[in-house]
Amino acid sequence: MLGLMQDWPLLCHRVIDHAAIQHGGREVVSRSVEGPLHRTTYREVRRRAMQVAQRLGRDGIKAGDRVATLAWNTWRHLEAWYGITGLGAVYHTINPRLFPDQIAYIANHAEDRLMFVDLTFVPLVEKLQERLPTIERYVVLTDAAHMPQTSLRNAVAYEEWIAEVDGDFAWVTLDENAAAGMCYTSGTTGNPKGVVYSHRSNVLHSMMAVAPDAFDLSVRDAIMPVVPFFHANGWSIAFSAPMTGCKLVLPGAKLDGASVYELLESEGVTMTAGVPTVWLALLAHMEANGLKLSTLRRALIGGSACPRAMIQKFEQTYNVHVAHAWGMTEMSPIGSICGIKPDYGTPDFEGVLDIKMKQGSAPFTVEMKIADDAGKDVPWDGKTFGRLMVRGVCVAREYFRGEGGDILDPDGFFDTGDVATIDPYGNMQITDRAKDVIKSGGEWISTIELENLAVGHPKVAEAAVIGVRHPKWDERPLLVIVPKKDEKIEKDEIIAFMQGKIAKWWMPDDVVFVDEIPHTATGKIQKTALRERFKDYTFPTQAAAE
Amino acid sequence: MLGLMQDWPLLCHRVIDHAAIQHGGREVVSRSVEGPLHRTTYREVRRRAMQVAQRLGRDGIKAGDRVATLAWNTWRHLEAWYGITGLGAVYHTINPRLFPDQIAYIANHAEDRLMFVDLTFVPLVEKLQERLPTIERYVVLTDAAHMPQTSLRNAVAYEEWIAEVDGDFAWVTLDENAAAGMCYTSGTTGNPKGVVYSHRSNVLHSMMAVAPDAFDLSVRDAIMPVVPFFHANGWSIAFSAPMTGCKLVLPGAKLDGASVYELLESEGVTMTAGVPTVWLALLAHMEANGLKLSTLRRALIGGSACPRAMIQKFEQTYNVHVAHAWGMTEMSPIGSICGIKPDYGTPDFEGVLDIKMKQGSAPFTVEMKIADDAGKDVPWDGKTFGRLMVRGVCVAREYFRGEGGDILDPDGFFDTGDVATIDPYGNMQITDRAKDVIKSGGEWISTIELENLAVGHPKVAEAAVIGVRHPKWDERPLLVIVPKKDEKIEKDEIIAFMQGKIAKWWMPDDVVFVDEIPHTATGKIQKTALRERFKDYTFPTQAAAE
Repeated sequence: MLGLMQDWPLLCHRVIDHAAIQHGGREVVSRSVEGPLHRTTYREVRRRAMQVAQRLGRDGIKAGDRVATLAWNTWRHLEAWYGITGLGAVYHTINPRLFPDQIAYIANHAEDRLMFVDLTFVPLVEKLQERLPTIERYVVLTDAAHMPQTSLRNAVAYEEWIAEVDGDFAWVTLDENAAAGMCYTSGTTGNPKGVVYSHRSNVLHSMMAVAPDAFDLSVRDAIMPVVPFFHANGWSIAFSAPMTGCKLVLPGAKLDGASVYELLESEGVTMTAGVPTVWLALLAHMEANGLKLSTLRRALIGGSACPRAMIQKFEQTYNVHVAHAWGMTEMSPIGSICGIKPDYGTPDFEGVLDIKMKQGSAPFTVEMKIADDAGKDVPWDGKTFGRLMVRGVCVAREYFRGEGGDILDPDGFFDTGDVATIDPYGNMQITDRAKDVIKSGGEWISTIELENLAVGHPKVAEAAVIGVRHPKWDERPLLVIVPKKDEKIEKDEIIAFMQGKIAKWWMPDDVVFVDEIPHTATGKIQKTALRERFKDYTFPTQAAAE
Repeated sequence: MLGLMQDWPLLCHRVIDHAAIQHGGREVVSRSVEGPLHRTTYREVRRRAMQVAQRLGRDGIKAGDRVATLAWNTWRHLEAWYGITGLGAVYHTINPRLFPDQIAYIANHAEDRLMFVDLTFVPLVEKLQERLPTIERYVVLTDAAHMPQTSLRNAVAYEEWIAEVDGDFAWVTLDENAAAGMCYTSGTTGNPKGVVYSHRSNVLHSMMAVAPDAFDLSVRDAIMPVVPFFHANGWSIAFSAPMTGCKLVLPGAKLDGASVYELLESEGVTMTAGVPTVWLALLAHMEANGLKLSTLRRALIGGSACPRAMIQKFEQTYNVHVAHAWGMTEMSPIGSICGIKPDYGTPDFEGVLDIKMKQGSAPFTVEMKIADDAGKDVPWDGKTFGRLMVRGVCVAREYFRGEGGDILDPDGFFDTGDVATIDPYGNMQITDRAKDVIKSGGEWISTIELENLAVGHPKVAEAAVIGVRHPKWDERPLLVIVPKKDEKIEKDEIIAFMQGKIAKWWMPDDVVFVDEIPHTATGKIQKTALRERFKDYTFPTQAAAE
């Protein structure tokens, strides 16, 4: 027996329709790539997104075709997303911070037919375009006045391009499982793999995300996604903001502390979202200039683990609640968000920080488990490490073109590649990447925890821990340190600093000092390179153990 | 091209799974029908719901079968819902306030095979059971100690019944469009009609409902649905509370002011939901005893229009935010919720009340329009009346067994039978029922507005307005008044009271005084009966007009 409810597919364009109808006058404020602030509304965004869809159609783009965007967060990028999905085509956000080889690889792998490109990236793409044969046209996200001389194939200024149609267009009718968007994961090894979001997953993810224990988005909010749309589906804010009808503030190309601060204050931003690096810059800017935040009440921080000092500063100095979150491109991307569940009672501030260091609890639509190497569940005691596995309505079941093969376990769980603990109240904490965790005598040691501890030393600029082969324990931790400029540290100083703060058997067997630690295109420590560099290293203690 | 996200159907049992896993220790506190408070947890509710499902199976209940509940809000009723849906069967909530004839009609129409029944209603059903041939077994929601002597067919105490199985059960696998629940609408005319909710619509409705601009439910909340589960799908709180993991407080059979107040305070309730009648009783109790509310922060009020004085008292005297809502059984049930959108600027308190008198804005998943009798859209100016039409993912497309025929317009909109205005910011206000609105010289007059005005007079206990045939204007309003006990009012007094507060042409042509106004089973004014009573009435002014 079936229910007798309406057939109302969950489609991305229904989100912008809702915003335009119920919250049509609400502002979308962008720092344009050309410079000045630009103000528009959801009603206008929808109107122009229809022009985008219509104009794409005239360029021969059809449902299912991939359309790339290489762009900052601006109103035009937003319009492009809705225009693309409203035609049934698939937005493919490209991270401009990827290496040119990777950009070429993914654009070709996706067979992108058209690319929306910001002024910033025109030179980059000009150099690359010979290697992008599938792209038939480049639409530069600007107007005629700012259109550069360019060699880009069939290049046209966005404003001129959409002005060629009247916007008399009806969104196409689609299956809610149709592809809506793509984002490639930038793994540290192998070629990037394409995650394909559906209309259904994007809409459901946003419905989940607006909830009080997630983004907590109300029509009275003003949200600024500092996280770029090209980072892990833009954390779905291009959908969750219009779904709520809140004001949307888009920072464009300027993500430095001063520029972010300026927008937070001038636009009355109440909620923001981004990676720790951006907040480091913001906090430094505010401290250097004795500034306060007058409207911001909540910051969603994810992408990498949020340092304790950052949470403390936001909460204590600036009275901003930090929602520490974790997710993956493969999860659309939210996997967990941390809050203080009532189970914890009423902890003091240090207790709150202890909890907020966790990446948090899975919202409805996400299922989590932690398992040992044999696939057996390990207990939720807040201590036992396990491989973090996820299942849910917004979780990838496979990569584009089947790359990477079967990625789900027999129960349908996706292996995140992370190692985590989950406490008795369901709050998860990432302890390491599965490939980085050190397996010492059958027990697991978190390299991240050791790194976080080491960077707490006032003379340490950056720290990385890798496992090095050990004849007795299989692997033991080696701590690699970049000292702060003009600082000199001794190994004993670091070891003494760490003593008493970790279990004895976690203590690194040695500390080495280097000038630089290698990073990936997205700023993560490239541990493969470190492991390669130290592959012939032997511990000073090793002779004794042998 | 399809998305590559996981196939993860939206099923009711995933909600209680989520609650049990992520918020397993959170309390579900009920006032038992037997008397004492009962405390359990989501983990336990899920465990026992699995026993219910398993035990129903042993009684031969299969996927798609309808299982009736005639019960108050308690943990056992909650377990029954999840047990029923987890087996793929369909919960059918029956409103015990319906006339026995109607109860018999709908139980037969639904072909209910089993009924969960509260102690309260055993005598009612004993009298009725001969007319309920499809019901094979009655499960009385109590334990052995409280089980009454009863003639009910195959009667068994719930606790004994579920104790016969071990709970080793796996939820059945279902299409998300499978039927999950049923609720009959109790129209003022004709037989009740069955609305059939799907798993998908229940889950989506709850995801929509937890949002900050709807119920605003967080894991840190304690919600008490005073609205019974049998009223319009229980406003979906049986799903939205576990989805959030908030504490759930269930008031059982005692909905009087003192009992409701006691639970609000003793259980630290932060959010509640119910119809105005309940709040009248609560406010009266608190006023009479000089009481305050120490934890309640938000009250969702719907079911019928919330009087201005009630909103004012909650907000001003008790510091409780009122979320004025509107919905229908056919809408799962939320259609709109009122909040102060930023478009209104910063109104003073009277301005806030003006806005909160509206039933509010459609959340995402609900589309609204207002249309004239010809089906043409009328403007959203906050003044123009139109028939309120809705479309959406949780809106009925037809009634059970096709009763009432085709209920959607060519664009797929459902006619709510209400007449409303929508203001430029999307906030809707019900002005009348379509069959009650008075059409005077081509313009529409709201009987509800006239009634609300009239009951504001200190000597008026109740007021009803009906349209009476008029040779010149087609229809003109007749105001019917029940004076307060021992009060005597004159027509001129009422007219003078209303003057200046409404447009001149809205003024009732006559006022008549009666001892009583007829009501439906659910407490609504039975205007059909009033119209019948006054069908031969002629206005004193009519002779002059003719």
